[in-house]
Amino acid sequence: MLCEAASPLGLATVVLAERSDDAAVAVASEVLSGTATDEAALRGLVQRADAITFDHELVDLETLQGLERSGAIVRPGTGTLAFTVDKALMRRRLREAGMPVPAFEVLPDPGTTHASAGAAGSGAEALDRAVRFGRRQGWPLVLKATRGGYDGKGVWIVGDARECQAVLAGAAASGTPMLVEERVAIRSELAVVVARRPGSVAASAGELTSGHAVTWPAAETVQVDGVCREVLVPGSLPEEVAQEARRLASEVADLTGAVGVLAVEMFWTGDRILVNELAARPHNSGHWTIEGASTSQFENHLRAVLDLPLGDTGLVAPCVASVNVFGGPGGEDPGGRLAEALADPGAHVHLYGKGPRPGRKLGHVTLVGDDAPSLYRRAWQAAAALGTPIPDHVSAAR
Amino acid sequence: MLCEAASPLGLATVVLAERSDDAAVAVASEVLSGTATDEAALRGLVQRADAITFDHELVDLETLQGLERSGAIVRPGTGTLAFTVDKALMRRRLREAGMPVPAFEVLPDPGTTHASAGAAGSGAEALDRAVRFGRRQGWPLVLKATRGGYDGKGVWIVGDARECQAVLAGAAASGTPMLVEERVAIRSELAVVVARRPGSVAASAGELTSGHAVTWPAAETVQVDGVCREVLVPGSLPEEVAQEARRLASEVADLTGAVGVLAVEMFWTGDRILVNELAARPHNSGHWTIEGASTSQFENHLRAVLDLPLGDTGLVAPCVASVNVFGGPGGEDPGGRLAEALADPGAHVHLYGKGPRPGRKLGHVTLVGDDAPSLYRRAWQAAAALGTPIPDHVSAAR
Repeated sequence: MLCEAASPLGLATVVLAERSDDAAVAVASEVLSGTATDEAALRGLVQRADAITFDHELVDLETLQGLERSGAIVRPGTGTLAFTVDKALMRRRLREAGMPVPAFEVLPDPGTTHASAGAAGSGAEALDRAVRFGRRQGWPLVLKATRGGYDGKGVWIVGDARECQAVLAGAAASGTPMLVEERVAIRSELAVVVARRPGSVAASAGELTSGHAVTWPAAETVQVDGVCREVLVPGSLPEEVAQEARRLASEVADLTGAVGVLAVEMFWTGDRILVNELAARPHNSGHWTIEGASTSQFENHLRAVLDLPLGDTGLVAPCVASVNVFGGPGGEDPGGRLAEALADPGAHVHLYGKGPRPGRKLGHVTLVGDDAPSLYRRAWQAAAALGTPIPDHVSAAR
Repeated sequence: MLCEAASPLGLATVVLAERSDDAAVAVASEVLSGTATDEAALRGLVQRADAITFDHELVDLETLQGLERSGAIVRPGTGTLAFTVDKALMRRRLREAGMPVPAFEVLPDPGTTHASAGAAGSGAEALDRAVRFGRRQGWPLVLKATRGGYDGKGVWIVGDARECQAVLAGAAASGTPMLVEERVAIRSELAVVVARRPGSVAASAGELTSGHAVTWPAAETVQVDGVCREVLVPGSLPEEVAQEARRLASEVADLTGAVGVLAVEMFWTGDRILVNELAARPHNSGHWTIEGASTSQFENHLRAVLDLPLGDTGLVAPCVASVNVFGGPGGEDPGGRLAEALADPGAHVHLYGKGPRPGRKLGHVTLVGDDAPSLYRRAWQAAAALGTPIPDHVSAAR
């Protein structure tokens, strides 16, 4: 989708792809073969590109820092990527800055706690701390791997000390650093996407000025088992919550020094907004902007990364409903069912060109208009036509 | 722009390109090398593609007819392309069907009139007929090459018999078939883009049913020296004229058996709408649909060509202003001036990746909103920022 947004602006894209059937290969101007953690491949990319950016977080910060030191334009920079690669760092830095986050505690790293304590020792210390945290905050708790988790992976909800022990034992065995946090009673989940240009040093004062940033309207996101299924604008969010969320997201973007798009995922409890996760890249919670906003997150990501002026983020209609397309149990290709989804003349279908494995996120459908309930129903109809299994909360609502 | 519209739908594009720096090469899924009139290249394309379509009219009908006979899916088909390749055929067929067209007469073909008459003889006969036509219709007249003209090329306005003779002598010398037509007193030029699916044979009656078609709202087009400079929706068109133009365009699409997008260019005289030109492909007069309509002409062209349901053509805002970007006298690359154009957060910039020769059409800028005069001014500002020389009618209006 970044390549699709680059082409109209006359921008050439060089994609570093692991496989020749990666979705971006079909639409990139040029393709290099390699992984995002392979230094030689990255150096090849730097030579071909004015700026380097990312569509996932599975990067190696040290390698990227090396590139930055040698003068490569890496956007977002490693200072921002550190927030999204390491949840412990992210939570600590947000809390230090006075941002509202869930109560949390970073557990001792199983690999490095004490020279004297083995894996079992640090595992025991982690368990002890988590259980004490549970006594203070109340059970159940949330345990999270601080690195590598996404789409619900690396997150466990534990109801008591015994469940907690089982998860932490596994984490200790695999050397996975963990944090524990309160299980927030959520009324809704929401996300605000921010696009931010590089900060610049004012010529006179030598002072770092914060980069110009824009936010899109807040979206309600509906997750099932930690996986985003629906993105609704404005959804059920009260206007004042949506406004406050935009303000918070903008602050977070300044705090992290983000360049490009930063998606800020939040919880709304009914009286508090808490910052939950950050993604320093175009994000599923912003795919609706392609048709729903004057400028998409993809276009503004490119503009920000190239330090070009940012486009208008206003809605083109009062309501947007966007529903993700997942592979059905039979592994059918949704491309073969395009006619059924397009039977709704307002359905905007996006298929990512990925292999249709069961349960894999393969695309999304967006509808834009005035009548939220109708858009919601039609978006799900189109996603279902493409083979998406319908989650319980949707079939129950029918 | 077709490739850009194909990617979100998960459709792969195979482009037959003459040159490796053709704009579509950067965004096509696959590229074959060759010209649109090279039968071997076209057969290679047929083998790789479910359907063949076009973004220009410089095709060879006989070669394409051969492909059709061998079972290739060519959309639009040669029956439709004949209308756009040959203006004489187009004018005759529209007049026979009772469609409103300018008064015209097809002049004798300089190459084939009479075995006894040489080029000079047929040239003399053509001049005689044109002059008699001028006596009936009044001067000035319009002389047109029946094939190969575009963007004002192949069109001459002649004020008297002497000017007429000069043009026809040149045409006879180069063997160019010509027609003559009244010079219509134009209040505005307008265009309606139609997207039409293939007709199908009803199973019961064996009767050909006309393909489902949709039209976008009519656009006012502003040409300078035969070249489209601005496309405005609704522009200065009265609502009833815009509606009648959509009805006419839809009839023309049925008449030509168009599959895919057909752009119907028309004249509005203040009391008559006359059909002027047809283009059986996505057309400059419909580029505004990318941001201005729910579904773009490019997406609906692909849908129609693949016999998929057509998307909604409704406007996303009351007014649209789209202005073409042309190369300036110094041959500067507009890509180097992107920041200046994007300084307007509502400017949607499209650059085609073509070499920046002076006077060459290199892109367009679209603005969408409520206030037509402001959109018009801003669209021209952005086009000017990209290096477009400003035509007199715009600078005079400032």
